[in-house]
Parts: sequence; structure tokens; C-alpha cells
Amino acid sequence: MSPRKICVVVTARPSYSRIKTALTAIKAHPGLELQLVIAGSALLDRYGNAVDFIEKDGFEIAAKVFMVLEGENPTTMAKTTGLGVMELTNVFYNLNPDAVVTIADRFETIATSIAAAYQNIPLIHIQGGEVTGSIDEKVRHANTKLADLHLVSTEEAKERVIKLGEEPEKVMNTGCPSIDLAKEVLESPQMHFDPFEKYGGVGMDFDWRKGYVVVMQHPVTTEYQLAKMHIIETLKAIDALNYPAFWFWPNVDAGSDGTSNGIRTFRELQKPENIHFFKNMEPVDFLVLLKNSKALIGNSSAGIRECSYLGVPVINIGNRQHRRTRAENVQDVNYSEKEIREATEQAISHKHYPSSSLYGNGEAGNKIAEILAKTELTYNKTIAY
Amino acid sequence: MSPRKICVVVTARPSYSRIKTALTAIKAHPGLELQLVIAGSALLDRYGNAVDFIEKDGFEIAAKVFMVLEGENPTTMAKTTGLGVMELTNVFYNLNPDAVVTIADRFETIATSIAAAYQNIPLIHIQGGEVTGSIDEKVRHANTKLADLHLVSTEEAKERVIKLGEEPEKVMNTGCPSIDLAKEVLESPQMHFDPFEKYGGVGMDFDWRKGYVVVMQHPVTTEYQLAKMHIIETLKAIDALNYPAFWFWPNVDAGSDGTSNGIRTFRELQKPENIHFFKNMEPVDFLVLLKNSKALIGNSSAGIRECSYLGVPVINIGNRQHRRTRAENVQDVNYSEKEIREATEQAISHKHYPSSSLYGNGEAGNKIAEILAKTELTYNKTIAY
Amino acid sequence: MSPRKICVVVTARPSYSRIKTALTAIKAHPGLELQLVIAGSALLDRYGNAVDFIEKDGFEIAAKVFMVLEGENPTTMAKTTGLGVMELTNVFYNLNPDAVVTIADRFETIATSIAAAYQNIPLIHIQGGEVTGSIDEKVRHANTKLADLHLVSTEEAKERVIKLGEEPEKVMNTGCPSIDLAKEVLESPQMHFDPFEKYGGVGMDFDWRKGYVVVMQHPVTTEYQLAKMHIIETLKAIDALNYPAFWFWPNVDAGSDGTSNGIRTFRELQKPENIHFFKNMEPVDFLVLLKNSKALIGNSSAGIRECSYLGVPVINIGNRQHRRTRAENVQDVNYSEKEIREATEQAISHKHYPSSSLYGNGEAGNKIAEILAKTELTYNKTIAY
Amino acid sequence: MSPRKICVVVTARPSYSRIKTALTAIKAHPGLELQLVIAGSALLDRYGNAVDFIEKDGFEIAAKVFMVLEGENPTTMAKTTGLGVMELTNVFYNLNPDAVVTIADRFETIATSIAAAYQNIPLIHIQGGEVTGSIDEKVRHANTKLADLHLVSTEEAKERVIKLGEEPEKVMNTGCPSIDLAKEVLESPQMHFDPFEKYGGVGMDFDWRKGYVVVMQHPVTTEYQLAKMHIIETLKAIDALNYPAFWFWPNVDAGSDGTSNGIRTFRELQKPENIHFFKNMEPVDFLVLLKNSKALIGNSSAGIRECSYLGVPVINIGNRQHRRTRAENVQDVNYSEKEIREATEQAISHKHYPSSSLYGNGEAGNKIAEILAKTELTYNKTIAY
Repeated sequence: MSPRKICVVVTARPSYSRIKTALTAIKAHPGLELQLVIAGSALLDRYGNAVDFIEKDGFEIAAKVFMVLEGENPTTMAKTTGLGVMELTNVFYNLNPDAVVTIADRFETIATSIAAAYQNIPLIHIQGGEVTGSIDEKVRHANTKLADLHLVSTEEAKERVIKLGEEPEKVMNTGCPSIDLAKEVLESPQMHFDPFEKYGGVGMDFDWRKGYVVVMQHPVTTEYQLAKMHIIETLKAIDALNYPAFWFWPNVDAGSDGTSNGIRTFRELQKPENIHFFKNMEPVDFLVLLKNSKALIGNSSAGIRECSYLGVPVINIGNRQHRRTRAENVQDVNYSEKEIREATEQAISHKHYPSSSLYGNGEAGNKIAEILAKTELTYNKTIAY
Repeated sequence: MSPRKICVVVTARPSYSRIKTALTAIKAHPGLELQLVIAGSALLDRYGNAVDFIEKDGFEIAAKVFMVLEGENPTTMAKTTGLGVMELTNVFYNLNPDAVVTIADRFETIATSIAAAYQNIPLIHIQGGEVTGSIDEKVRHANTKLADLHLVSTEEAKERVIKLGEEPEKVMNTGCPSIDLAKEVLESPQMHFDPFEKYGGVGMDFDWRKGYVVVMQHPVTTEYQLAKMHIIETLKAIDALNYPAFWFWPNVDAGSDGTSNGIRTFRELQKPENIHFFKNMEPVDFLVLLKNSKALIGNSSAGIRECSYLGVPVINIGNRQHRRTRAENVQDVNYSEKEIREATEQAISHKHYPSSSLYGNGEAGNKIAEILAKTELTYNKTIAY
Repeated sequence: MSPRKICVVVTARPSYSRIKTALTAIKAHPGLELQLVIAGSALLDRYGNAVDFIEKDGFEIAAKVFMVLEGENPTTMAKTTGLGVMELTNVFYNLNPDAVVTIADRFETIATSIAAAYQNIPLIHIQGGEVTGSIDEKVRHANTKLADLHLVSTEEAKERVIKLGEEPEKVMNTGCPSIDLAKEVLESPQMHFDPFEKYGGVGMDFDWRKGYVVVMQHPVTTEYQLAKMHIIETLKAIDALNYPAFWFWPNVDAGSDGTSNGIRTFRELQKPENIHFFKNMEPVDFLVLLKNSKALIGNSSAGIRECSYLGVPVINIGNRQHRRTRAENVQDVNYSEKEIREATEQAISHKHYPSSSLYGNGEAGNKIAEILAKTELTYNKTIAY
Repeated sequence: MSPRKICVVVTARPSYSRIKTALTAIKAHPGLELQLVIAGSALLDRYGNAVDFIEKDGFEIAAKVFMVLEGENPTTMAKTTGLGVMELTNVFYNLNPDAVVTIADRFETIATSIAAAYQNIPLIHIQGGEVTGSIDEKVRHANTKLADLHLVSTEEAKERVIKLGEEPEKVMNTGCPSIDLAKEVLESPQMHFDPFEKYGGVGMDFDWRKGYVVVMQHPVTTEYQLAKMHIIETLKAIDALNYPAFWFWPNVDAGSDGTSNGIRTFRELQKPENIHFFKNMEPVDFLVLLKNSKALIGNSSAGIRECSYLGVPVINIGNRQHRRTRAENVQDVNYSEKEIREATEQAISHKHYPSSSLYGNGEAGNKIAEILAKTELTYNKTIAY
């Protein structure tokens, strides 16, 4: 029997970290053949082209798809998704996979879901069943309703997907593949690279060995006009702290222009002396950087997921991670310079937390590959109630 | 206060009947302004261009969007949807409505949903919460997860949408607008037109005053390669019955080429003497034709919805309406000449059934307009559990 | 040195005949690697799916692209082209060819040209420099201005391309590959197959051994609203002749719905007793059918090209081939039942004409492959004057 | 008789300056109705959103179309064009203009041409017949072959369009509307605004009253991988000059990411002390800034056109304006720090040149409106030879 062709679509830089160990496991599995499609902002230098990392990690790319419209507003997000449906449909038609994997809840992931589901290709959704704010919340659950098999990250997510009317035998908690990487890092947490040397970036240099924080804050699509205002609170807080900070540019989303603009203007006018900016890092390097930091500030889901396992204190700002299950390492604050600054000060003086296995125990990649090789693949379903 | 701009998108011939009385009520409501968008197969002569009927009914069309790819296979269905997302996004951006209405569950309706939801425009879904087979089943529930307000047709549908995690106060049973038309027809059921004269069509002429059946069978997208085989069973059954039949061409869906091809081949080879073919009819004329028929054969949802109110016997073939709530007028059969023929024979000799209000009592259009004018419109939601 | 990768895009059924011997020669050439892309109506059953013939002829297809929008009107022609640009761009990006070949002048061929030229891929245009009516006239010369190398079919075309400002050394008269096939057929002109048996089709059967004509009439895009009126003149003429006729369905173009509709209505009402309808034939079979016919009626360019070599009398109707260089076998008539009928009567009683090498001497395929292997490939040019 | 609806499509910031006086004249003409469509990078903040200027100038926008794909490489240029074809087709279909105007030769202008020509809408091309390098060269002449009426800027361009096979009576030299603005500026050349105050920007402040140069250098699409290397030569030259410079960011084209990246890196590393950066200026302000400068350095066509009328010395770098007709104010140099620096030094010490009317005498806008109101509009043509 020829191996099952599993087509995985990575549409953004952070999704690669979320799926990397599963890709490795699929590639290594004798019953599976990996068809890796890289699309969307994962191809764009402006957001930290992920292709170099991916190829360096030894993956062959079956197809690349440019599909991001400029504008970073709700209109271009929607058009990007439409373009993605058209192009991914063509890619799947020509690759002819046995199953397609769509990851999590970024707005353009529904393009993968439609392109597969409409072509009667079994659709596997990773990381469904969670709860957040932003358009992601709608997209994630719509992906669930289009998907045939659900590989979720937590027990709570599993229950929620079942409540959404999916057959219980089609919902499996594998844990999140990002925790697999976090496990590697926890086992060998030393900073094995110099961030300035390896990644360049812009802004101030400082001695990161003496302690630093990491900042990563994305715009919230449903509040996209406020993106600039939101980021400026954080910039003021970090500037006022006067503590070394590594800052990552935002994802491409409605509002990211506002976020970037806020950062650029602030840099130009305030010339903050303690901040260095990066576009992107290789997944493991990023986790090592987090593990060695005093805290992560922003609204990245890495704060909720990977940091729970790494035990890194997280200052979680605003509504983006609204209601997502979290461990004790997370403290929620509003878009407020004062709240952000005070919470960060506390976190800097606080020790790291014990590791939590809320999002998995580091075996997700292998479990996913095993399931993809063994489970019955179907594309026709009816709601359970 | 200026009236709320309500943009309704009609993407297919049958959706117009499903929404017509709501359009009338929206247009007449002082607190509402109708922006009617006609797209997809509703613009195509091949499937019975609905535009003529719509304009004759006095509606002004704000924008027309050609978006159907040729091929009638799963690949072109997906691409049509992608194209729809892109084009409808542009249309909404330029029309700037206060809310968008997406209707039911045809594959391309998710394009309307994405174009609105991603642009932070409140999305209203009509006819959610039902259950069927085909890709419609996935699309309907995905529409629910993208929508902010749910105007459903039955109590069972209401319960199901709430189970799907929607807030109960955002789910309202208005009944189905198609029943409003059925009510008009039931009040004045006489054939007020000659089908041959008014609609032409091809095939045999017969004296419809002496009794006839109606056939309407669409391909099932998830079984689209079987479409030709499926339709041929029905053709053989109707041919064998040798009872006058009005036959309607299928919708544009994956497999409709198979269905049409089956019909053409059968016509060419068997030259059936009792069948006349139509592409389309005005909504009310179609219901009058049904009301005066002995039975409806096929898998149209009109059999489940309008015919329940009209009391017309229905021979429902195959999986397309799988599990949709039905009244006593519906008899289910397999894709089998014998089953279809025997069930139709019985139906012809059976009287009509009493009217059922399972899908509404004929007030849906007004209720929908009232709600659209009064209810709070939101575009940000979180799952209820 | 690795062979040059030559990507040829076939977007319609007739283009395959026009390029077939070049494909064979490219495939066989040690210095070339063929990347064959099949797109547009060449994939659609409705217009006679060319894929089966192509695969039967031993060609491997590198990518297939559905891109035809339904509607057969000017709006959908334009959208089809836009979709083609987007999808072919993606295909070329992933195939990474050394040169792209675009064929002739159908409206969607400019999509191939843009996708290649904008990506700095050397673009080779086949069959430029001719003159006709319809949108093809604009498209052909625009293709010339986007292309870097011009392989034309006649001396007159060569001169015209040079007049258009192309460097003379970039313009070569190879003759038309369709003549290569015509040469094969002229060498072995016997009907080696029974058309009814091999191709089915619909309509009357007759004894083709006793003589027949062939009809092939496409809509003219710039007069597309008149398509139905135009085809009906031809139908009436052929019906009145009462001489056996093989009739081919039109290409997908603005107006083809009108043409098809005219044919269907005429069949339904007039039940012509001497006409049999086909969708498509394999290229060589079609030429054999032509060679054994009394005449070709319509506006197909096959009348001007292949029939000049075959010596078959042609009744050329209307403006579609306006000013295209022609041999003595062509007689021009207006859209007029009377003119068509009288000219056809004359042609039936006339003998075939001597073979003309106006469009080549049957060596085009090999010449094209030779040039593609040897010539310098460039993508940057400036007008010569 | 109702006024002719003239749809003008502006797809980029610089095109607005090129057409502004014609828009004013069309709007004012009793026989014409302006339908203004703003699309592409003209909508994007990143490239200096032109919409604010346009609305401030009193124009109503009939439709806006986001269509630019991110990536600034040849692949995304092609896809942007494809998307433009699809969306503009829809816009024209719904606006139903009597004629469409496409401007000059940017890559995406062919989208306007196809959307109009394929829909049988008379197409008017402004600024055809010129010669340059880059993909613009191919696009400009392809636009000519798709257009029905040609309103060119120079006598040489007129002759060239006629040589391209267009009927002489369809080619008219109106001069370039950009010269109309230049004429206004020449009549009132005082700096009426403070650039720092009105436009912000980033970089050093200086006393512009003491003399400055202007830099505007775009990537060349056919050499797009070299964009960064090219811009760095210019940056080094200007840095070495140590003379105040206003620098404008590049257009969105293949390579603009390289250009921007070069600028950002240079700023970060070299911290040039004499350069201030702007995204955009209102058309008239930009010309006033040029008129008061010592020289324009780069490869903008403003150097060739507007500066010839203004008499401003121009250092024209590289191949982008290759062979475009030029007055004595232009000096050509290679991508070489030394050549650029030396030529700029000379220009700074040189007086301005006498005004040249090579590109018109300042009456283009009115002439264009007059022609659009009076000339016969056609959409069907055949090459003249």
C-alpha cells in the first residue's frame, strides 16, 4: 500500500512553530508522505520569511502560494482569504492528497478548510476547540464545522469540540506540537546563540546576559482601528521600565499597519534606549529566548501555550486571548501603560513558575503522525445532535 | 436617524424564493434600506436567470457579481467560493452596509459570510440549524459559527443553533419566508397560467389539467461522480410510470453536469413521451404548479419545506435531505427505479395532506424585517460554553 | 547542461491541434524538457474535454487549471482572463520554466503572456502577426508586444510583426504546426474511422460515405448579442440544403451561449433531418473528416489554415476571419441564409483545390523545437523604432 | 442627450498627478460625467495614500479596489494584475461607463485595459507611444494594442503609435496633463509651505531655504534583484555630497522591498545627516519642491516630463527611462556612486534650464476633455497594415 499523502498548509510564521514536530514525525513515518505547502505571510520577508528556516530544517516544499493583499485592514484580510481559497484549491487539485491539515485559527486558515472540504478531501483541524477574542474565534469554530477529524491540545478543547456536535471518536487530544519544542528547550535551556549576532534586527544593543524581557503584541482584528493606540501604551510602559527588551514585529493582520506605525513613530520620536527589534526567529531559538527572559509581555498565544510549559511569567494584554485556558504563569492586564508597567515590574522580580502540562506533555508530533497513519479518513459528516 | 442598510446576497435561483417575502418587508420598512446583491448562478441563463423575475417584482439591484466557474465539479465549486469571497468583499466595502444577510447553506453562501464577518459587518444567517447531507451540512454550520444573529425556520433548528454555542438571545425562530409564499398560494391555489405558454421549455406537451407530477433532483456534491447514475434511476421510473411530468433542471453544483448529461442522453435515446422540461419558474408560479400536482419527486428542499405547508406528497430520493425535519407528506426512497416508481404510484392515488406549520405560519418576512430594524447589531462574539 | 524547460500552455481545444506537432518535437528533443499546462475550456467536458486526447497521445500534464467563468459574455471572458493570470502565475512560479509558450490569440492567451512576462520569463508567441476581427485582433497584437520571440506562420505575418516594432532577428516564420498534421492527413486521407461509432454525438444518422459537409461556427465576441441570430441563418441554410452535415459545437466565448441556444432551439422546433452534432474530435480525425468533406461552412480558422493545405472548399461567414491571409479555397459570405446556401451548393459541386503552402509546408513542429533549443532566450526588450 | 460617462482608473500615487487636470476638466465639462475609480497602491498608506489628496481636491470616488499583493516581486506583480482584471471587470460592469481611461504604463494598467476591452467598452490610453526600459515598456505598447483611442504627450509618441498600426485619426497629441500642473507652478513658483511641517516624514531636519536636492529612485522590475545594490550607490553618493536632500520612498513594484530595505539598512548603519524622507506629497506641492530644488536625482519619469518644463536639472540613473524623449535638463549616469555624486555636484552649481514644451504646453486637461466629449467612441478595430 502506498503511503498516505498528507498535505499540511503553513500560512504564517507562528504556525510553523505550532506544527514543526508534527511535520518531522509525518516525514519520518513510513506510512505517510508529507506534502508541505507554504503560503501567505510565511513567504514574506516583511514578516520574517519562514521559508529559510523550513528548508534549513530539511523539509521539501511542494508548493508556495503568494496570497496576502496589502493594506492590513479587514477588507484585505477577506480578499486574502478568497485568493487563498482559489489558489489552494488549485494546489490540492494538482497534488491530490489523501488528507489536508489546517492549523489553528488565523483568518486565512479557513481558505485551507474550504479548498479541502469542497473537494471532498478529508480535512484535519489542529488546535480547535479553544476560546479567544478577535476574528480568530469565529474562524476556529467554523474550521471545526468544516473539518472531519479534530486533533486538539487540551481536554477542555476536546469537550468543547464534542459539544459543537462532532462525533466523540473524531476528536482526540494530542496536546500541542509547540509543547514538544518547549520540552526540548526545557531539557536544554542554555542560550546557545547571541541574538544580536544571529538575527541582526534594529534598535539598541544591550547585555542580554544581565536580564531582559520579550515583547510580542499583535493587533486585534475586531478592534483594528485602535491598534496604534494599543501598542503605544505598551511602548510607553516598556520605555518607562528602562529594562532591556527584545521586541518582535506583529503578524500580518488587520491593524498590523497601525501597530507597526505606532512602533516606528515611537522609535523616531522617543528613541527608546532599551529596546531591540526583531522580525522573526527560528522556533527553538525563540523558545530559548523566552525561557531565559524575565517575562513575556503582549498578547501572543505563545504566552498562554509554550510559556505555560516553560514556566515563564506572562503579562497578557487586552482581549486577544480572552478566555483561552491558561496556567498560573499568566497575568491579565488592560491596554494601560500603568498596568503593563507594574505587572512587568512584579514579573521581573518573580521567579519562573513550575512547568504545566495544560497544553500537552511533549508527545504531540508523534501522536499526530500515528493518528494520521491509522485513523479512517472520511469527508462526509452530519452533526451529532 | 438614517435607516439601517441591509445587504441581502442572493447567489442562486432557489434562494430568491426562500427570501422573497423578507425582501419585500425590508423594502417596505421605514427603518430599513435594502441593498440587494445578485450573484452566482442567479445571474446565469443556463440555470434560469433569476434577475428578470427579481426586477419584475420591483426590486432594484445594487450590484451583480458573476462568480461561477465552469466545470460543475468539487474543484470549481471551491474556486467559485474563493472568487465570491474576493468580489463580495469589494461589493460590501463599497456599499458599506450596516448588516449582511446570508441565506441557508448552498456552498457559495460561505463567501458572503466571510466577506461580511472579516470586515466586521454584523452577519445575519437565515435558515441555520437544520440538518442534511452533502457539503451543505458543513457549510450551514460553518455559516452559523461566522454569523452574529440567527433567524431560523423551526424550533428544532433554534435548539440546535443554541447547542452550537450561540447565545440564546441571538437565535430567533421566524419561520421560513418560503412558507409566506406557500400561504398565499394555499389561499388562492388555482393554476392562473399555462406552463407551456408562459415558460416554453422543451419536451412533450400534454394536458396538465388531467394531472401531473413534478420532478426536481439535484446532484449530491459528496457523491458527485454518481450524479448521472442517480438521475437515470429517476428518469427510468418516470418514463415507466408514463404519467405526465414537469421536470426542472438541476442547480449548478458539483455533479450537475452529470445530472444534465444523464437527462440529455436519456432524452436522446429513450425519447420519453410524458416529460416536459423547464429551467426555472417565478417563485409563486412554481408553488402553484406544486400545489396542483399529484406529487413532487426528487430531493429538493422545497419538498420538505413548502410542500409540508402545501400538503403535497413528496417522494424524497437519497441522502440530500438526510435528517432534515419533515412532516407526514414526505416519503423517503433510495436511488432505485423500483422504489421511486412504486412510491410515486401510491402518491398519485393519495390525496394531499393537511397543511403543516412545521416551517412557519406565513409571517416570516415581516418578522425578519422587524428584527432587522430593532435588534442590536454586533460583530464580535465568543462561544457560549 | 540540463535541458531547457519549455512550458506550453494549452487553454482551449483548438489550440491543441495548433501546437501538437511542436509538443511532440519538444518532447523528443534532447535539449528540451516539456512542461505541459492544460487550462481553461480544454478541461471542460462541455466543450469537448481535450485532456483525454492529450494523455492518449502520450503527453504528461504538469498542471491543470480550471479558470473559465460561466456566462459566456464579455464580463465573464474578462474575469476568466484575470483568474488565468493569477493561477498561471502560481503555476509558472512553482514550475520555474526557462521559457513559456503562448499560442495564437484566444482571449485568455494574454493571461499566459502576462504571467510569464511579468515574472521575467522569456515569452514565445506562436502565430502572431495575423489579422482578423473580434477581440482576438486586439489580443494577438498585445501578445506580440508582451512576447520576446515570435514564431509566425506566414511571411506576411512575419513582416507585420516586424512592423510592430519587434527586432527582425526575433521573428521567425516556422509555418503553422497545424499544417504538419494536415500534411500527414494529405498523405493518408482515407476515413479510417466511423464518426458515429467513435464519437457518438446527437442528431440524425446518415451514410457519410455518400458525401457530407462540415459546419463550425463560433460567436464573434464583439458582436456577441447577435450570436443567436447569426447561427440561425446558418442553420436555416444547412436545413434547406438537405445535404448531410456534421456540426461542431462552438468554443467557449462571449456569445457561445447564444450560439448553443440557437442550435438547441432550432433542433427542438425544426428537427432538422440532415444534421449530426459533435462536441470535439481528435485533431487528426477532424482533419481527415474535413479532407473527405465537400466543404467546411462557418468561421473557424481551420477553414483558412488547415483547409488551405488540404484544398477543401470553405464558405467563410461574417467578420471573424476578417482580413486573415487566405488561399483560393475560401469564399466569403455574409450572415445570410441565401448567401450561405448558394455558396455551399456551388462548393459541393466543385472539386477540391490544389494544396497551398501559405501557412507552412509541414515542418513547423521540428523547426519550433530546434529554435527553442538553440536561440538565445531573453525577457527584456525595447521597441525597434 | 445624457452626458458621456467616462471612467478613469487611478492605480498609483504618481498616476494621479499625471491625470489630475484632465479629471478637473472632465468633471467640469457639461457633456461628460466623471466616474473615478481608485485602486492599487493609490489606496495604501504605506505608499502614501492618495485618497486624501483626491477627496480634498473635490473629486468623488465611484469605487475603491484593494488589489495589491504583498511581496513586491515579479510573482506578486503578476497576481496583482490578475486580481485587478477580475475586480475592475466587476466595477465596470456595474458602473456601465461609455468609455474607460487607462493611464500610461505601470504594470497594473493592463488590468484596466483588459477589463474594458474585453467588455466592449471603448478604451482610451493616455501617454502611449513613449519608450523606456523595465516591464513598463512591454505594458505600454500592449496597452496601445488594446486601446481604441490614443491621447499621447509628444509628437514622437504620436508617430510611434501610428507606426504600431493604429489609425492616424485615432491618435492625438494633447500633451501631458502633468505639464498643466507644471505650468501653474512655473507661474507661481514660491515655496508656499514648509515641507517638514506639512508632511512630517523621518530623518534629519535642515534649512531647506539654503538649497537642497530631491531624490526619487524606483526599482527596475526587470532587474529587481539588484534593487538594493542600485539604491545603495545613490545613498552613498548623496551621503558623500553632504548636501541637504529630500528623499521619496519608491513605488510598489517588484524590487521596492529591496529599495526600501536598502534605505532602511543604510539609515540604521550610516545615520546620514543630510537626508529627510517622505512618502508622498500633493501633486502641486511636489512640483513646487522640485522647482525650488537644485536638482532631481533618481529615475522618476517626473525628471523627464515635469522637470523638462520646469527646467530643473536631472541626474537620471540607469535604464528605467532608457530612450524616453528628453530635453537638455537631463544628464544620464550609471548606477555608480562616483558618477551620481559628480553629476549632482555639477548640477547644484548649474542654473536651471529654460522651460521646454517637449511634453506639452499646459493645455492637456482641457484638450482631453474636449476630445472625450466630441470624438466617436468605438471598440472594434483592425491593425492598419
